Amino acid sequence: MSRRYVRELADGEAVAEVYLVAEKQLRASRNGSQFLQVDLRDRSGSITARMWNATEQHSQVFDAGDFLHVKGKIQLFQGLLQMVLNNFEKVEPNQVELTDFLPHTEHDVNKLLERLRGFLRRQSNPHLKALAECFLIDDELMRVFAKVPAGVRNHHAYVGGLLEHVVNLMEVADRLAPLYPGVDRDLLIMGVFLHDIGKTRELSCGRGFTYTDEGQLVGHIVLGVEMLLEKVARAPDLSGEPFPRELLWRLKHMIVSHHGELAFGSPVVPMTPEALALHHIDNLDAKVHWFVRDIREDQNPASAWTQFQTALGRRLFKGGTSAGDDEVIED
Amino acid sequence: MSRRYVRELADGEAVAEVYLVAEKQLRASRNGSQFLQVDLRDRSGSITARMWNATEQHSQVFDAGDFLHVKGKIQLFQGLLQMVLNNFEKVEPNQVELTDFLPHTEHDVNKLLERLRGFLRRQSNPHLKALAECFLIDDELMRVFAKVPAGVRNHHAYVGGLLEHVVNLMEVADRLAPLYPGVDRDLLIMGVFLHDIGKTRELSCGRGFTYTDEGQLVGHIVLGVEMLLEKVARAPDLSGEPFPRELLWRLKHMIVSHHGELAFGSPVVPMTPEALALHHIDNLDAKVHWFVRDIREDQNPASAWTQFQTALGRRLFKGGTSAGDDEVIED
Amino acid sequence: MSRRYVRELADGEAVAEVYLVAEKQLRASRNGSQFLQVDLRDRSGSITARMWNATEQHSQVFDAGDFLHVKGKIQLFQGLLQMVLNNFEKVEPNQVELTDFLPHTEHDVNKLLERLRGFLRRQSNPHLKALAECFLIDDELMRVFAKVPAGVRNHHAYVGGLLEHVVNLMEVADRLAPLYPGVDRDLLIMGVFLHDIGKTRELSCGRGFTYTDEGQLVGHIVLGVEMLLEKVARAPDLSGEPFPRELLWRLKHMIVSHHGELAFGSPVVPMTPEALALHHIDNLDAKVHWFVRDIREDQNPASAWTQFQTALGRRLFKGGTSAGDDEVIED
Amino acid sequence: MSRRYVRELADGEAVAEVYLVAEKQLRASRNGSQFLQVDLRDRSGSITARMWNATEQHSQVFDAGDFLHVKGKIQLFQGLLQMVLNNFEKVEPNQVELTDFLPHTEHDVNKLLERLRGFLRRQSNPHLKALAECFLIDDELMRVFAKVPAGVRNHHAYVGGLLEHVVNLMEVADRLAPLYPGVDRDLLIMGVFLHDIGKTRELSCGRGFTYTDEGQLVGHIVLGVEMLLEKVARAPDLSGEPFPRELLWRLKHMIVSHHGELAFGSPVVPMTPEALALHHIDNLDAKVHWFVRDIREDQNPASAWTQFQTALGRRLFKGGTSAGDDEVIED
Amino acid sequence: MSRRYVRELADGEAVAEVYLVAEKQLRASRNGSQFLQVDLRDRSGSITARMWNATEQHSQVFDAGDFLHVKGKIQLFQGLLQMVLNNFEKVEPNQVELTDFLPHTEHDVNKLLERLRGFLRRQSNPHLKALAECFLIDDELMRVFAKVPAGVRNHHAYVGGLLEHVVNLMEVADRLAPLYPGVDRDLLIMGVFLHDIGKTRELSCGRGFTYTDEGQLVGHIVLGVEMLLEKVARAPDLSGEPFPRELLWRLKHMIVSHHGELAFGSPVVPMTPEALALHHIDNLDAKVHWFVRDIREDQNPASAWTQFQTALGRRLFKGGTSAGDDEVIED
Amino acid sequence: MSRRYVRELADGEAVAEVYLVAEKQLRASRNGSQFLQVDLRDRSGSITARMWNATEQHSQVFDAGDFLHVKGKIQLFQGLLQMVLNNFEKVEPNQVELTDFLPHTEHDVNKLLERLRGFLRRQSNPHLKALAECFLIDDELMRVFAKVPAGVRNHHAYVGGLLEHVVNLMEVADRLAPLYPGVDRDLLIMGVFLHDIGKTRELSCGRGFTYTDEGQLVGHIVLGVEMLLEKVARAPDLSGEPFPRELLWRLKHMIVSHHGELAFGSPVVPMTPEALALHHIDNLDAKVHWFVRDIREDQNPASAWTQFQTALGRRLFKGGTSAGDDEVIED
Repeated sequence: MSRRYVRELADGEAVAEVYLVAEKQLRASRNGSQFLQVDLRDRSGSITARMWNATEQHSQVFDAGDFLHVKGKIQLFQGLLQMVLNNFEKVEPNQVELTDFLPHTEHDVNKLLERLRGFLRRQSNPHLKALAECFLIDDELMRVFAKVPAGVRNHHAYVGGLLEHVVNLMEVADRLAPLYPGVDRDLLIMGVFLHDIGKTRELSCGRGFTYTDEGQLVGHIVLGVEMLLEKVARAPDLSGEPFPRELLWRLKHMIVSHHGELAFGSPVVPMTPEALALHHIDNLDAKVHWFVRDIREDQNPASAWTQFQTALGRRLFKGGTSAGDDEVIED
Repeated sequence: MSRRYVRELADGEAVAEVYLVAEKQLRASRNGSQFLQVDLRDRSGSITARMWNATEQHSQVFDAGDFLHVKGKIQLFQGLLQMVLNNFEKVEPNQVELTDFLPHTEHDVNKLLERLRGFLRRQSNPHLKALAECFLIDDELMRVFAKVPAGVRNHHAYVGGLLEHVVNLMEVADRLAPLYPGVDRDLLIMGVFLHDIGKTRELSCGRGFTYTDEGQLVGHIVLGVEMLLEKVARAPDLSGEPFPRELLWRLKHMIVSHHGELAFGSPVVPMTPEALALHHIDNLDAKVHWFVRDIREDQNPASAWTQFQTALGRRLFKGGTSAGDDEVIED
Repeated sequence: MSRRYVRELADGEAVAEVYLVAEKQLRASRNGSQFLQVDLRDRSGSITARMWNATEQHSQVFDAGDFLHVKGKIQLFQGLLQMVLNNFEKVEPNQVELTDFLPHTEHDVNKLLERLRGFLRRQSNPHLKALAECFLIDDELMRVFAKVPAGVRNHHAYVGGLLEHVVNLMEVADRLAPLYPGVDRDLLIMGVFLHDIGKTRELSCGRGFTYTDEGQLVGHIVLGVEMLLEKVARAPDLSGEPFPRELLWRLKHMIVSHHGELAFGSPVVPMTPEALALHHIDNLDAKVHWFVRDIREDQNPASAWTQFQTALGRRLFKGGTSAGDDEVIED
Repeated sequence: MSRRYVRELADGEAVAEVYLVAEKQLRASRNGSQFLQVDLRDRSGSITARMWNATEQHSQVFDAGDFLHVKGKIQLFQGLLQMVLNNFEKVEPNQVELTDFLPHTEHDVNKLLERLRGFLRRQSNPHLKALAECFLIDDELMRVFAKVPAGVRNHHAYVGGLLEHVVNLMEVADRLAPLYPGVDRDLLIMGVFLHDIGKTRELSCGRGFTYTDEGQLVGHIVLGVEMLLEKVARAPDLSGEPFPRELLWRLKHMIVSHHGELAFGSPVVPMTPEALALHHIDNLDAKVHWFVRDIREDQNPASAWTQFQTALGRRLFKGGTSAGDDEVIED
Repeated sequence: MSRRYVRELADGEAVAEVYLVAEKQLRASRNGSQFLQVDLRDRSGSITARMWNATEQHSQVFDAGDFLHVKGKIQLFQGLLQMVLNNFEKVEPNQVELTDFLPHTEHDVNKLLERLRGFLRRQSNPHLKALAECFLIDDELMRVFAKVPAGVRNHHAYVGGLLEHVVNLMEVADRLAPLYPGVDRDLLIMGVFLHDIGKTRELSCGRGFTYTDEGQLVGHIVLGVEMLLEKVARAPDLSGEPFPRELLWRLKHMIVSHHGELAFGSPVVPMTPEALALHHIDNLDAKVHWFVRDIREDQNPASAWTQFQTALGRRLFKGGTSAGDDEVIED
Repeated sequence: MSRRYVRELADGEAVAEVYLVAEKQLRASRNGSQFLQVDLRDRSGSITARMWNATEQHSQVFDAGDFLHVKGKIQLFQGLLQMVLNNFEKVEPNQVELTDFLPHTEHDVNKLLERLRGFLRRQSNPHLKALAECFLIDDELMRVFAKVPAGVRNHHAYVGGLLEHVVNLMEVADRLAPLYPGVDRDLLIMGVFLHDIGKTRELSCGRGFTYTDEGQLVGHIVLGVEMLLEKVARAPDLSGEPFPRELLWRLKHMIVSHHGELAFGSPVVPMTPEALALHHIDNLDAKVHWFVRDIREDQNPASAWTQFQTALGRRLFKGGTSAGDDEVIED
């Protein structure tokens, strides 16, 4: 059944839907009475809801992070839509579709999966092709692979983020490989596919993106190697030949070294051209994606600069008319 | 007139040609007499030459780094060609074509230049196109641009190295730009062209690659901005319009930030998507090129690994049968 | 027309003047009514103003960062002066003298300029003297030079801060040069003048000190070299001789290396005695100034220590009776 | 006279006792009147107290950090004990036993001291034994030694913390010394005793743990050496022999190097086996103690992880059922 | 058959034995003839051998790193034993017992193994006990475990080094665990056993200690996790119960985090008390062992200091009469 | 008795004097015989000496680092003076004046001492004046103070180096203090005097500059505080008043923090203006002195650059005609 997303709500509409509470406040109105103000959110956006003449009892029923089935009406107020809340009821997380409440990739996941399969099946190395197939036929794994974000914050932090990042990286690898004859295209494509595969066990999409216990204790690099070993054991069934020892080392090496430096959590540094190239294009894709999104989503049109981005350690230049620069210093 | 390159010398041949002395030793032979042993080099390679019954007088005539016009004969000795030296005469550097004695790009410089011009002239931004033209019509500059290495050591350290690096980067930029709609293709192409342009004043190709005084004191980043300013002043003559202020800032920013971090000598960090992308593809191209060449040129076929590469802080994996791994520890 | 500065206000006085709003709050009084509390500021200091029986409408007229023309009365309340606000009106920034609202150097700017000119004109090197003159006769530039702070925070962050810092550094250079015969006095004096000249284009004094777009994208080091190049092109007109190439390199080198280390944003490290000396005295003057001011301005007389100074990573010792130390640990 | 500790208070009890004010707020109740809410604390824990119908006058009598003699009644409210405050009076710090209000070691201080003396007196080196005795007979010093925390935050930050840490370290040294024949047991035991002795002058236990002026200006490493020198001058009186020069150097070296690296404030790095062992076991004991306490004291039983520990730069794994990990990502 | 070790050779003895060539030189004697000087080595030490009237032909038969079966006579010369070489023959590596030529632990390997088994079998946790048994019954693995060094250089770099290090660490863990009730003894013992187990696949003992290809590409941390996973799959056969999920995570976490910091190659930092304790005692044992050995083996009795130890970045203090310190500066 | 310094030797002169052997080689001459080549040195410079027809016996009598009484004759050979050695005899170090063989300050030590005393006695703070006097009347200490170098390498590494450095620093402090009213001149002067006083116990001038055992184990910072404490105990005898507690802390703080950062071995960072100023002028004086000397003493007049200075991590620019820069890249 299709739900009514925040983005679809319109002035005058009566609502009866489940939303996630992002923030809650019990406030005093000017006439001395109290009202409850709540930010409701789903994967499409968020809206402010107010329940008039609310009491502390109302307020104690739920907290930020809970889900509420609300009944109310949409109104236009000072140019923004808001919801007048008549009634609400708490809903348990296991009764909702959690991913309805998380941000999603803007791309069609099925098309991304199609492209992923295409890249993997077009490999000419029969061992790598067989190995890839062992992953592709694992429905459970691929279902998670298509959902997990690439991280809990920063770049590609949304449902489908890892898949989107990996497919774009394959595109990059595919276009650049001809320029670097010393780099084995198939190996690079396969390294792109595997480098973050451990994130399917490291990260969890609940009411938000978090680390699993195992993920936090072991890290996606080691988990990725574990997953590779499970599949590589089955590859000979498909290829009819033992998987070459050195080829396996090279794959493990790409997973293990892809952060590029020990200080970033790689147990070893890249020592093959493919591992090096993987490290650099991974970094390029993640960072450029991050810059472009921060610039696009910045809230303040009056400034030529984004807010200071703590994780990047800088503000980004959006450009356009920037008052600051023209302010000549006059007497 | 065409010279006789080291690579072309053959057993039994009589030689009369100028070479650069890479190393010189006066040694005692087993019969008590002395002989002079010299490594002679040109851009194609090097050969060992011996002059029998030499004296200290012979030895004092020249030093490593000097040019000698030698007469001698090529012989096969223990599987290697060597030269028996009958006679030599010192030649002043201004009498030789210095670049004959330095390593060169393997690519055809004219074709590289052709591709460079192509990329620059296919830009759709008229200001950038006009600016690029101001550089392209500066014959003296373009002549140096086509010769200078990308560095004195490490990657692309040969005549034509900068040009080769820049053209390959343009190819990379051209292929990746469609994948990142938030990145302005023309700006990135122009940033690729300009990012190391200061190296034409920072580096010098004499008997080897060195820094100019100005280059060492000021650095190619600042010199590059200087050169950009000289040309941008003339761009309006070609485009018929003033060069936009913000566009100039963005170009300067790409030059100034392309090392990516303050610790690597960038006065500011990248704050636009194009500057960020430039930094990453520059790094990718330089490092992959470096890895591939070190692997290809490694001298020891018996090992699956290259020598330890000090500047990279690691050995590189060449692969192939590696005895070490099979040596089981037996009682 | 002279304005009435905060510092001049006296008990009982009626005020009608423009101030900058530093902070704004609509608060409830004990009797249930609301009042508006505002911190008003100009370059001389700040005062708290209260408007009784204010409404949300009053509050919505302006924000922190706006200028208000206020009418009110000064009262002594609990030992502090405050303003009772009767009336206010918003004033556009272009109608005020922005620098009236920013902190200023305590020194007489004209005298500082006089000393600056003195140091520069007493140089014996005719090329440096001519070059200095090219800057001094640029009225527009010198007007900005006399206003810009040395930074947006930290040391000398006030109108006239750069000038004060530079003149004090010249004094330092003048006194130390005789102790270091290997250091060229003129070169050091000129380096002092030029090292931060790019800040006149990097920083902007609007309602506060900010970076210009160009300043943030390019940085004052590169902007300083640009400005030097503009002026050096005209120096021969004054000296009658071409400006020596090596002398120009040395000047550029001082600008480019004055942060002392790559990690602090210098593209190259100091490689001449003058560049090294400049780096060290710049650091000395900035830091000692910073320490002394933080100690002098610390608000808490009960402690022998200043607040923790985040940018310095430490608290500073003011001295005097410090209770903490005498508290013996008794049973 | 024994006081009534927070931990001992029971529902319905009337209280008349002195507590430290940890936090103070004047708040409005729903009926429009105001009440005073105060967190009261002593070494055993803290409790919330409320005084109804309080006025701003009440509130201005005291601040957080002050001591109050309170009269009131204990009530159970929503499952937690709170105090209804009828009356309070400010008490000067010199009228209270400061350490009653600070956290304490859970161990019996006298038994710790007994074990400390035991370890020191069982040394076989007569010089070290005599030196230790010079410390042990300094009652004033030993009284402070038994009280001072090992630090103001982080590990062992409670009254008696240094003593507890040192005695546990002696136990560690005693057990490990037989495994490392190259390590002199007596020297290591004595190094353990002396390494942080300067903290008796560096830290102060007032209303909280703070640095003394001297401590902050000079640091416990240098103060420790000073204290060693004072005592070593008297050791010959007890041993009848001059204290060996090299032995003194070795002791000073252990104090001076025990932070292990220059970056952690050691003027020299460990250069003897005993100094090295001291550094490592000190680190081990401090960090393990810290981990175990943070895990034990974590407030949130629902999570398998502690809060993020800023000073450690990580969260710690407590284990147990962790919901996060089981949340499978379902369609 | 027992061989004649270098350490056993005596003056006057006739030798016929295989040794490893550590160094080779063809030198001219004072009478104009040439002699061959060779350093011969086995696991017990090294000796200088000279063959008089040798020719270049003799010299070209072998190189450093080769094995020679030599015949000669031992002589005392200037207080040192040397060998006069009459005759030699090259021997292929596969004909010798490689470990005869490498340094060995001074401990009895069988006793070390006995103690290792004791510690592992005394664990009370049945899962860990069963897991340990899966390793102990793998004869091939345990044979390698008993041979591999703990590293190729630095500490415990000899045959049996890893085993010696691990057993000593178990002793440490066993003694310290009672002092830290928050640390699980069994988990720590098992962590000690497993932390470097990957070195059995990372390192190789050939003519010297080297990395295997897989070891260099993947690292012992990831290899160790692989080995744990292989064995943990079989533990339920012995214990009769599934291996607890969280227990496995804790073991993997200890392996993965035991270098303590990302910068040292740990993909994650320690987040459990056992992982933290393991990191610290591993570091303690390795470094103390290293210090003690460097001090013991230092060659220069005249100095109170060892040579500068590059890998430690310092000289170590041996103590004893040090001339330097007494040299008063006299006029 | 005055000795014959190397610098004074003239062509044709017969020598009979003691020199230090800096280097020794037994070499073969062209006619097959051997000769001994020795570099002889004293504080004024060095000269090459050759003894013809020497034997290994001659060579074994002495080593580099020994003193020889030589008899020989000075000859001009290829433009350089050399000594023909007829005869030599080893001399024990205790028979020579060690400092005759070490490099010395170029300044007159007595005048430096005079200036030092002047600065110290012109202090107006009676406590600091008394304290300074306690140092000045300690003849033994002042004798060492006048001899010790400021370091074993790098800057001021010669007899009298510390004194020269300290006196120049006092001059600097004296000139700058008036520019910084927040800096106490006397405190700064006294800090300059004391900051490296521990070097009188840390360093030793034997046949070269070395660390004492105590110096290496404890470091000059802690030794300096020890020495301050010894003297400060006597200051009240001279001033008639107890030495103020806070003043002592400030002095200790200056010694303890003068390296400026923990990473450079300061246990605490500067927290007073005087400590900060001391750190910066110390650094300035040391580094400028170092630059100027390296430039002055560089051996290669053909280059505009010094050799690469490893400890500085750079080459220094000497200036002058630099061929490299003019080499245009020509076809």
